Amino acid sequence: MNREARKQLNREKLLDRGVQLLMENGYHATGIQEILASVNIPKGSFYNYFSSKEAFGAEVIRHYIEPFIAQLDDFLSRPDLDPLSALRSYFDTLIQESARNDFKGGCLLGNLMGEIGDTSDTCRRVLQEAVHRYRDKIRQGLVQAQARGQVRTDRSAEELADLMVDYWQGTLLRMKIERSVVPLHAFMRHIFEHTLPG
Amino acid sequence: MNREARKQLNREKLLDRGVQLLMENGYHATGIQEILASVNIPKGSFYNYFSSKEAFGAEVIRHYIEPFIAQLDDFLSRPDLDPLSALRSYFDTLIQESARNDFKGGCLLGNLMGEIGDTSDTCRRVLQEAVHRYRDKIRQGLVQAQARGQVRTDRSAEELADLMVDYWQGTLLRMKIERSVVPLHAFMRHIFEHTLPG
Repeated sequence: MNREARKQLNREKLLDRGVQLLMENGYHATGIQEILASVNIPKGSFYNYFSSKEAFGAEVIRHYIEPFIAQLDDFLSRPDLDPLSALRSYFDTLIQESARNDFKGGCLLGNLMGEIGDTSDTCRRVLQEAVHRYRDKIRQGLVQAQARGQVRTDRSAEELADLMVDYWQGTLLRMKIERSVVPLHAFMRHIFEHTLPG
Repeated sequence: MNREARKQLNREKLLDRGVQLLMENGYHATGIQEILASVNIPKGSFYNYFSSKEAFGAEVIRHYIEPFIAQLDDFLSRPDLDPLSALRSYFDTLIQESARNDFKGGCLLGNLMGEIGDTSDTCRRVLQEAVHRYRDKIRQGLVQAQARGQVRTDRSAEELADLMVDYWQGTLLRMKIERSVVPLHAFMRHIFEHTLPG
């Protein structure tokens, strides 16, 4: 493997491990040395990959959200699912994963918005960008569902997508302290039974 | 001032300062020595007041939520306000305060649910207790509003109160990264215009 490919691989490893550790312990409690040590990258070489802990945090946020957006996109592209069923199936999948993870972690975006959303401006901007991309993907599904008459049109798809994103974050926090998916099921009922239908 | 009264006063000061620092920097980034130094209490005397940082965190959570419950209670007790107007006025007040605080901080409960809700069992239980007390107070207002025909009765007051608590937490996270009260206004519209009316 040439040097550039090795560097890219190490960068990936640092980001994967960063997602895991920031999820488990939060931003402040996660040390750069701890991340390096856990993936066998020499101490002191961190700055070959990232310019600062804050820049690393920002990259971890981007790295974290990608698979969620891809997964949501996959559901919305499935020919066997109408757009509303796709959104529902996507959230059902997240609920099953949360239960499998023993209600731990929640959403890294939510955790970091709470912990550093108002103190690190770099991370704040990247969190905003990640939340908007995620919201826009949900909005896209809602627009399709509105066009098919599955979702009310007296409220904009953007307004409904914002509601889904924000309420979901709140229920994930609640899930962690209740150690239960009950708040997530309440989300599903409120959104898919009481709010979206026309 | 006798020794017991002095101790009580110092404990209060530590808790007040704890709320402030945990709000600004989170749990992990706040050091016990930093709190002691900022209120001029000798280093090393922390354990006269609290058995551990975790026990301190738990007390800070209790100390934080009290004024919110008292304020909500005040609104619900005002003879000039019907129960639904009381709830609305209470949240309006929180929104005004959030704007005055330049969208910083959010809710300490939300921040700590995200940061340590799944890692400190002591804090998790106290967060749960605090969220339940707050939810129950909102539920009390909703029950009164339901009795007056102001709020739908096809969904339980507890279910609606849970929704309000969880969605509010999500919008506070969003407020922090947007640096805007727009998500909080969306909460008001969704709850008070679209969801609660019968």
